[in-house]
Amino acid sequence: MEFQAVLKEKALYVEGLLKKYMPKEDGYQKTIMEAMNYSLSAGGKRLRPILTLEACKIVGGNEEDVIPFAVAIEMIHTYSLIHDDLPALDNDDLRRGRKTNHIVYGEDMAILAGDALLNYAFEVMLSSSIGKTNPDKYLRAINEIAKTSGIYGMIGGQVVDVQSEDKQISKEKLDYIHNNKTAAIIIGCMRAGAIIGDATCEQLEDITKYAKNIGLSFQIVDDILDIVGDEAKLGKKVGSDIENNKSTYPSLLGLEKSKEIANSLIGEAKDSINKLSEDVKFLNGLAEYIIDREY
Amino acid sequence: MEFQAVLKEKALYVEGLLKKYMPKEDGYQKTIMEAMNYSLSAGGKRLRPILTLEACKIVGGNEEDVIPFAVAIEMIHTYSLIHDDLPALDNDDLRRGRKTNHIVYGEDMAILAGDALLNYAFEVMLSSSIGKTNPDKYLRAINEIAKTSGIYGMIGGQVVDVQSEDKQISKEKLDYIHNNKTAAIIIGCMRAGAIIGDATCEQLEDITKYAKNIGLSFQIVDDILDIVGDEAKLGKKVGSDIENNKSTYPSLLGLEKSKEIANSLIGEAKDSINKLSEDVKFLNGLAEYIIDREY
Repeated sequence: MEFQAVLKEKALYVEGLLKKYMPKEDGYQKTIMEAMNYSLSAGGKRLRPILTLEACKIVGGNEEDVIPFAVAIEMIHTYSLIHDDLPALDNDDLRRGRKTNHIVYGEDMAILAGDALLNYAFEVMLSSSIGKTNPDKYLRAINEIAKTSGIYGMIGGQVVDVQSEDKQISKEKLDYIHNNKTAAIIIGCMRAGAIIGDATCEQLEDITKYAKNIGLSFQIVDDILDIVGDEAKLGKKVGSDIENNKSTYPSLLGLEKSKEIANSLIGEAKDSINKLSEDVKFLNGLAEYIIDREY
Repeated sequence: MEFQAVLKEKALYVEGLLKKYMPKEDGYQKTIMEAMNYSLSAGGKRLRPILTLEACKIVGGNEEDVIPFAVAIEMIHTYSLIHDDLPALDNDDLRRGRKTNHIVYGEDMAILAGDALLNYAFEVMLSSSIGKTNPDKYLRAINEIAKTSGIYGMIGGQVVDVQSEDKQISKEKLDYIHNNKTAAIIIGCMRAGAIIGDATCEQLEDITKYAKNIGLSFQIVDDILDIVGDEAKLGKKVGSDIENNKSTYPSLLGLEKSKEIANSLIGEAKDSINKLSEDVKFLNGLAEYIIDREY
């Protein structure tokens, strides 16, 4: 099967898992469940849950154990999108062709739905981890998700990104944003998956390297696609970085050098997992897909 | 010592604990730490952390083990206040005489600071629980906090409260709001404290009853004080419920009946803990303080 077909199949599988874990739309507080589920059902590549499941599988772990973590990471990703889209932040009316959460449910419910999804992610991970034979492992896995989602991870990156609007920033600061806003939770979810799968320290390190490299590369490619991408294929507007005078890899280092770095990171990502297992075809494919999305 | 002096001493003790756990204001993302710590340092009675510590103590537990939970519950309470104060929700410029978070840091940072505090609460609980001799106990305790903070607890209550503005609602729905918006996390933090303290099932049940009763009574007294309270003593405006045409205990059942119910709940709260230990003086005092705050 072509890599893209495999990716789509895996995304469909994740859709099914999400449906099982979505809160039932019931009770006085029904609206908040509807608002949560509206954004959870909005599609997307489901890359983070797929990577969580794959990290567990590649170290020989049991998929059943890691499913709640895969679902939870998508809830965290989704809450961050709902809050990013709010008028006080990006003020976006549309995401993936659908009205954003606050347009449908109002700003008050969108704020609360975001809060609720973050909280629910922990409810899902915690409640499924109670009573397991190795509870400390589960504490460590949830902690990986928690620390890469907060001020030393995703939120930290988001804050600096917001504060860097319309400003020229250093490459060091741009790397901080890219590494934290995007790569951090990719690292967190893959480490969580690997920990649940009883990874050795060495395996965990290799998976961390893979996650870090594809995460940063993903953002660099996003920067590049904003210049050379095809709006129709990407399904979103291009050119907004230049329009917003945003510092990006291409603006700081040029297009060619940026492509070179993205390629080199993907090479490193592949190197770090190739020794892990014989079954790294999917993760290799994903690494290549990240740079081949468009150009 | 007078009860109020004891309460103040305990609050000061909690202030010290909070300072130890506040994130260091450092790095590119410094602003978010400042925004988090600004609201965490805004004072208040610190009832939730005090109750967390007390629940552990009363069942003979070790205070050191429960401190991260006491701190975390105040972080969750604080995030809920930051988000409640936002223009899209209560639109408050002042809280406890200080400018609200979004007035000082902007709406974008206030949304992110709230998110960050919720996330950080879990980081604090999780990271302190790893490597303990009974990790499953810690998972269960964190889960108590998580489930009472989310859509089946605090957020659920908040959502229905927001949707009930300017509407007459049934007593059943009002009880849902009171029980979830306020009582739920009091139950959650006391249960977490008791679980960490190795409470028996019976002890846990008695503590849950106490928490449930003081939580609901607290809200009923708040409703009453909004009618008969003294603005100077309360430190906040009274009469806003009538002004906003809000359904409250007094509006649905009358002032006298409301006082009667509040008193009866406090009696039940005291009954359920009096058999727990000989050292229930503080929890008894707190129960009485809740109804004696003003009238």
